[in-house]
Amino acid sequence: MRVTINRKAHFNAAHRLHNPAWSEEKNQAVFGKCNNPNYHGHNYELIVAVTGEIDPDTGYVMDVKILKDLIKQEIEIPFDHKNLNLDTEEFKSLNPTAENIVVVIWNKLRKHINQSLDLKVTLYETPRNFVEYSGA
Amino acid sequence: MRVTINRKAHFNAAHRLHNPAWSEEKNQAVFGKCNNPNYHGHNYELIVAVTGEIDPDTGYVMDVKILKDLIKQEIEIPFDHKNLNLDTEEFKSLNPTAENIVVVIWNKLRKHINQSLDLKVTLYETPRNFVEYSGA
Amino acid sequence: MRVTINRKAHFNAAHRLHNPAWSEEKNQAVFGKCNNPNYHGHNYELIVAVTGEIDPDTGYVMDVKILKDLIKQEIEIPFDHKNLNLDTEEFKSLNPTAENIVVVIWNKLRKHINQSLDLKVTLYETPRNFVEYSGA
Amino acid sequence: MRVTINRKAHFNAAHRLHNPAWSEEKNQAVFGKCNNPNYHGHNYELIVAVTGEIDPDTGYVMDVKILKDLIKQEIEIPFDHKNLNLDTEEFKSLNPTAENIVVVIWNKLRKHINQSLDLKVTLYETPRNFVEYSGA
Amino acid sequence: MRVTINRKAHFNAAHRLHNPAWSEEKNQAVFGKCNNPNYHGHNYELIVAVTGEIDPDTGYVMDVKILKDLIKQEIEIPFDHKNLNLDTEEFKSLNPTAENIVVVIWNKLRKHINQSLDLKVTLYETPRNFVEYSGA
Amino acid sequence: MRVTINRKAHFNAAHRLHNPAWSEEKNQAVFGKCNNPNYHGHNYELIVAVTGEIDPDTGYVMDVKILKDLIKQEIEIPFDHKNLNLDTEEFKSLNPTAENIVVVIWNKLRKHINQSLDLKVTLYETPRNFVEYSGA
Repeated sequence: MRVTINRKAHFNAAHRLHNPAWSEEKNQAVFGKCNNPNYHGHNYELIVAVTGEIDPDTGYVMDVKILKDLIKQEIEIPFDHKNLNLDTEEFKSLNPTAENIVVVIWNKLRKHINQSLDLKVTLYETPRNFVEYSGA
Repeated sequence: MRVTINRKAHFNAAHRLHNPAWSEEKNQAVFGKCNNPNYHGHNYELIVAVTGEIDPDTGYVMDVKILKDLIKQEIEIPFDHKNLNLDTEEFKSLNPTAENIVVVIWNKLRKHINQSLDLKVTLYETPRNFVEYSGA
Repeated sequence: MRVTINRKAHFNAAHRLHNPAWSEEKNQAVFGKCNNPNYHGHNYELIVAVTGEIDPDTGYVMDVKILKDLIKQEIEIPFDHKNLNLDTEEFKSLNPTAENIVVVIWNKLRKHINQSLDLKVTLYETPRNFVEYSGA
Repeated sequence: MRVTINRKAHFNAAHRLHNPAWSEEKNQAVFGKCNNPNYHGHNYELIVAVTGEIDPDTGYVMDVKILKDLIKQEIEIPFDHKNLNLDTEEFKSLNPTAENIVVVIWNKLRKHINQSLDLKVTLYETPRNFVEYSGA
Repeated sequence: MRVTINRKAHFNAAHRLHNPAWSEEKNQAVFGKCNNPNYHGHNYELIVAVTGEIDPDTGYVMDVKILKDLIKQEIEIPFDHKNLNLDTEEFKSLNPTAENIVVVIWNKLRKHINQSLDLKVTLYETPRNFVEYSGA
Repeated sequence: MRVTINRKAHFNAAHRLHNPAWSEEKNQAVFGKCNNPNYHGHNYELIVAVTGEIDPDTGYVMDVKILKDLIKQEIEIPFDHKNLNLDTEEFKSLNPTAENIVVVIWNKLRKHINQSLDLKVTLYETPRNFVEYSGA
């Protein structure tokens, strides 16, 4: 009897899509406006989903307050009001596309969540574009 | 060729998280503000998803009006504007966490929906916290 | 050149609509399900709007972090996860309708906001019902 | 390491639910208000989800601009501001229920998306009713 | 001390923008896709705002259940699942633009609401286009 | 009989709050995380409201397609995927707070909208913070 709990969070960041192995022309052709050398930014909205058995004593799969604090510590504090390309270790040499960001977030959270629990992360880059990753 | 239909519904209820086998101190430590003996409450928003084959005569998986009426009869009438701990049989001795509520709702609906159809229930306790259950 | 800044906040509370001067029959007739003696509850969503001149040094009408902290101190801490009828002074003898709650919130915030600034409060009791008050 | 990218789109259309093999009485009994011979309409909101490996050069599963243009060409241009029953080939002899529309959209998009990628379509007929199809 | 209460409602309808005094060419030039002779449609979302003094006995400006029933009787029943041009008296000779619809709705509700109360109607034609009318 | 039409739009941009007349310490004390020298960013959501008489021939206050194109030309093209501080003339020497941005947008639109029409602009910096300006 596995139930999924979901918690929403958010952070606001600047980024730029760029592949240093390519010419400026190719970067511009592939990434278009997202390649702006002066950066642009987004309100990233995050949904973290944890799936597991309900603990009969608490009625919880996982205490959502613990999940909220974990997201704050691992994701919001390092990424909020930051330039992802310049201010974070993770994206110094990894292109901060929504796809790469959601995988980085999943990996950062995975190591702090009990292995009996499944983890899925959904990341909204805009209200119209979002990505999902479940670790497989 | 299986399609999922989804119907949204809602109910407003009071509840309190509490384990009678524990001391007040432990209840307070585990459930915090949610343990308030005078109760607090939520606008619960519900999404009921039913998956199955499309009937070629109607173009429906299931008539959504029937699903809407079923949710009203089984969930909204018994739970809306109620105190879940005091006014319902289901939570007299079951802690009304979001996880336990979603399983109760799933069980109440499951017995009225054709066995050839899959059922999933999503329950928003707040716009930031929600749970999902598919019966497995 | 007056600009309005808006900040969203939220609290979850139980309440009951009841007029102690009336019979139980009249209370039931007027307030219906909202009169449940065991209480029900809502996720109250709040929008606080402050209008004034832009400070040319900061570019702010009012620092939204200060507004956020004020809402937390004056509204969220006293009302969140509370039973409005039993746990708050304001609604011990005042019926906690959405209309009365929004006026109470406005009055609590008004005394902490500079008199040169206008104040408006919007309170969502559910996503379908909300009230507004500007102090006049 | 498979990631899902999602893109939202929308179109506004008129439709009518009707089975020409049935009497008017049976059509009215089954489809009710949706059988109105003069049509009614909806703002259809669409979420197209594409799942696959991240390309290490771009950091993309699929360029979302290409997906956006594909949805525009295949879905928005032929369906937006149209009467689905009268103005489209697909629904000349297929009842335009949400279930049938989502399958038609999936089939139209599937042939333009690389076979290594999975496709799922979610279609909101109203904010309260929506359907999902993954091709199986 | 005037407070505003708001109630949301919705109806789904087909319509067509057309001025019979104009040529087909001019209708097409001005109304574009909205002039489709076979109609298109929308999920109209409605917010009805009523402003007045709080009744000290009830704590209500107006009983929201009465407002909800009034909207159902006057707006939802006549307009929901209808073709506004063909099925309603109001738009037989009035072009059903969002602007004209919101004025018609305001006029229909105004005559049933106490003259001491102010009335404002907001009508969403799509999530991106909406109109407002306060009767002045 | 004045009606308001509203159109939603959006742009994604990077920015930094900074007053060059102040020391780094004072900038940090006043603007906090928003002062990050490497910038951060937002999905700005915009609502443009135009109020006027309904033209009896069209049923329009203003053709919303013209308003949509005007917002695209004047706001989306110059601001979308830009660094407001570095890439725009308007914010080279004006601190890009939400308050200042909404006034700049209002001024850019005002000169293209007929003087008989009123204009109001609402700008969401995040889903929780937004500002409004009506030109007075």
